[in-house]
Amino acid sequence: MSSAAKACDLILFGTKGDLARRKLLPALYQLEKAGLMQDDSRVIGVARDELELEAYQQLVRKNLETFIKKEPIDEEVWQRFKERLHYVQLDLSATADYKKLSAVVDSSQRIPVSYFATPPALFSAICAGLHAAGLAAEPARVVLEKPIGHDLESSRLINEQVAQYFNECQIYRIDHYLGKETVLNLLALRFANAIFASNWDHNAIDHVQITVAEEVGVEGRWSYYDDAGQMRDMVQNHLLQVLTLIAMEPPARLDADSIRDEKLKVLKALRPIDTSNVHEKTVRGQYAGGYVAGGAVPGYLDEEGSRSNSSTETFVAIKVDIDNWRWAGVPFYLRTGKRMPEKRSEVVISFKPQPHNIFHETYKQLPANKLIIRLQPDEGVEVQVMNKIPGLGEHMQLKQTKLDLSFDETFSSKRIADAYERLLLEAMLGNQYLFVRRDEVEHAWRWVDGILAAWQATGETPKSYQAGSWGPVSAISLLARDDRNWDE
Amino acid sequence: MSSAAKACDLILFGTKGDLARRKLLPALYQLEKAGLMQDDSRVIGVARDELELEAYQQLVRKNLETFIKKEPIDEEVWQRFKERLHYVQLDLSATADYKKLSAVVDSSQRIPVSYFATPPALFSAICAGLHAAGLAAEPARVVLEKPIGHDLESSRLINEQVAQYFNECQIYRIDHYLGKETVLNLLALRFANAIFASNWDHNAIDHVQITVAEEVGVEGRWSYYDDAGQMRDMVQNHLLQVLTLIAMEPPARLDADSIRDEKLKVLKALRPIDTSNVHEKTVRGQYAGGYVAGGAVPGYLDEEGSRSNSSTETFVAIKVDIDNWRWAGVPFYLRTGKRMPEKRSEVVISFKPQPHNIFHETYKQLPANKLIIRLQPDEGVEVQVMNKIPGLGEHMQLKQTKLDLSFDETFSSKRIADAYERLLLEAMLGNQYLFVRRDEVEHAWRWVDGILAAWQATGETPKSYQAGSWGPVSAISLLARDDRNWDE
Repeated sequence: MSSAAKACDLILFGTKGDLARRKLLPALYQLEKAGLMQDDSRVIGVARDELELEAYQQLVRKNLETFIKKEPIDEEVWQRFKERLHYVQLDLSATADYKKLSAVVDSSQRIPVSYFATPPALFSAICAGLHAAGLAAEPARVVLEKPIGHDLESSRLINEQVAQYFNECQIYRIDHYLGKETVLNLLALRFANAIFASNWDHNAIDHVQITVAEEVGVEGRWSYYDDAGQMRDMVQNHLLQVLTLIAMEPPARLDADSIRDEKLKVLKALRPIDTSNVHEKTVRGQYAGGYVAGGAVPGYLDEEGSRSNSSTETFVAIKVDIDNWRWAGVPFYLRTGKRMPEKRSEVVISFKPQPHNIFHETYKQLPANKLIIRLQPDEGVEVQVMNKIPGLGEHMQLKQTKLDLSFDETFSSKRIADAYERLLLEAMLGNQYLFVRRDEVEHAWRWVDGILAAWQATGETPKSYQAGSWGPVSAISLLARDDRNWDE
Repeated sequence: MSSAAKACDLILFGTKGDLARRKLLPALYQLEKAGLMQDDSRVIGVARDELELEAYQQLVRKNLETFIKKEPIDEEVWQRFKERLHYVQLDLSATADYKKLSAVVDSSQRIPVSYFATPPALFSAICAGLHAAGLAAEPARVVLEKPIGHDLESSRLINEQVAQYFNECQIYRIDHYLGKETVLNLLALRFANAIFASNWDHNAIDHVQITVAEEVGVEGRWSYYDDAGQMRDMVQNHLLQVLTLIAMEPPARLDADSIRDEKLKVLKALRPIDTSNVHEKTVRGQYAGGYVAGGAVPGYLDEEGSRSNSSTETFVAIKVDIDNWRWAGVPFYLRTGKRMPEKRSEVVISFKPQPHNIFHETYKQLPANKLIIRLQPDEGVEVQVMNKIPGLGEHMQLKQTKLDLSFDETFSSKRIADAYERLLLEAMLGNQYLFVRRDEVEHAWRWVDGILAAWQATGETPKSYQAGSWGPVSAISLLARDDRNWDE
């Protein structure tokens, strides 16, 4: 690591939890492998159980073997990584316990970066403990996993609790969509290419679609999920974050607050949805039984742990209007759901069609140009253009061609880093630009709360859709009313 | 051939000449092979020599074997093609001789399409002969090879001579650059893609470069070429034709006159170059000895047949201003020359740079987007965009990526037709849109004549440049003064 950034003690609260095991520890191993860990940085696992260091190391090793599937563990890398590992047993809710942590962490040597991979209910206690242990003063940092609350009020509460001990510049709120390679490439495309930058407004763009489709159902997460629903679980964070990056004005600089100021302005410009327009602007769905990938799957109400009368939505489609100069008249259609036909996250930017078709003899209706940003299952960016088919003939034959913008012979050999690798690295480097600021979280909740309240007030219960379909028919109608279609 | 177009008698004046042998006969064979010849169409070779049909057929066969190098002659195709061949001996300057032609051609059965692959000095006699033979009335057509004159006056004379017997709608003036696949693709790109169409003016485009570079010298063509020079030989036709297609307003329809009306408007909008600005706007060059492709080559004045005091230019560079609404302030830089380092014809459309660079930490100066249209040696279209290099790191690493717009898995298997195949086919189908209208020719000459006259009046003799270089240093300065560079 050539950067002059200071070494860190990455304190991993919840090191035995699902997120740490599946995502964080493998990501740290990959950073080690890529030579991106500061020489003196350490990883300090924290959990309630008594564990000898060696046992913890074995646990981590086992984790890596389980969750790094594409490659064998490199022994040399593992040896280096293992040397960084430390373990501290403590009861997260017992403030006094945190002195065990201060015995290990010397914040004069390394910057303490505390990663809260725990339920948010514990955030307050951890903050108090870190403070008591002298590990909360700048330049110490905390990394918060979602969900930050359940609505505006509860998110404010969490943010207040953390803010008692940490300044906003110390707080790194994760939305892992912001760590995706392609999301960053979107910034490069938008702001390093005049041909896109100049086509990025209501003059050139007809509408935008953001789809985050999951093939899975709730599967065992019913008790958590039924209190949340797709709106809180996906729209409030991932979809709105992606929306802000597409819609924001060009920031003056690439620094954290220049970018987040612009994102915030978009969130503030979202037209509120209330009882007067909720029926017209949104679709709520809940999956019934059906077939996904050729297999029969149960409906939401028949999943393990279900209540028979739940009216939680597993699908949301929204027509979002952004009331500002750039996006006047350009709808952003969002949809996200479980038990969709495939796992697919993508953004489709549909440009306006040609005002006049001089090729009507061969192509009755010229398809409009599209810029497609794929986030899942594979990342990539492509542009759809019309091209002449080579050859002779009485009329010009055209064809829609996809240009893979991420295609480059020097790129294809590159491994695409997982979002958590990027976010952990940036947190350790002290770069906040890919993390969500408090006012963003709260404005997103304010807008989402409006929809949730309107659904409740109008008794908008979810429409049933067959598992393995693209949601209720109303989601098709939402676009069809505007003479548009979801991109397939 | 499924089209309902009528069959033709393609009358090939000059069938034994260089153009017919190298280009026209092989192109006709390829049309035969592609199944694009009307069932009843015939090819009637005309020349001065007495030749039996069989001898003519043998001659054609030999031609094909000599000039179709990439593939063996397909016997089945040849048999079909051979059946179409006829031969008529006549003295092109003897009007009475043309009755031999009317004995073979029955214009009630097939449309006579006369291809004048002869020196223009013969055009008048051929027209008179065709008229006398009753082969000039509509729907008969004539196809004229360049050069159409040597200046405005002489081109008017030729056009007048032809116009005595043929209406403009019967006249097909060849500029083989208009038959290139990529030139047509340019129309598709411009007019079928809103993202390009909306970026096609002085707001989005910084400047345009058109390069037609030849590796060869004059080599034996000295006596013809020394009277012409690069300006008349290349700029007046090919470079200005390509320029008009790039610069024209969108035509309302794809028909011949809609397109040619728009091209003409561009030619009319070219800012005249006269003694007041010729020095600032143009560079004249003549090659001296040097090295091309590793071998020593003589200078223009040392070529076979040369006069020692010739001041004919073998290189021209021009800064062209188009005085209309769309192109105000956007220079079109043209350059064409012999004995350049490589054979290369291309158009480079340089978009304006980003107004503000937020990536300055990794890229001090962001390269502007470019659209590159390659015409020679290989045809293709590519867009240069800036992309994020995948990977982690403190700052975003960018890279200029070339997107090959002609890349499409279904395209790569397609053979790219030679320009003459397309132009012969369109002439036989009666589509004039790829042929040059009289007023275009004359307006191009008017503008070129102004430069030639200004060179003469100001005593602007060609600057010497080394064979194998990109022309005189002044050609570099022409752009450098505007803080630009030729694309390499």
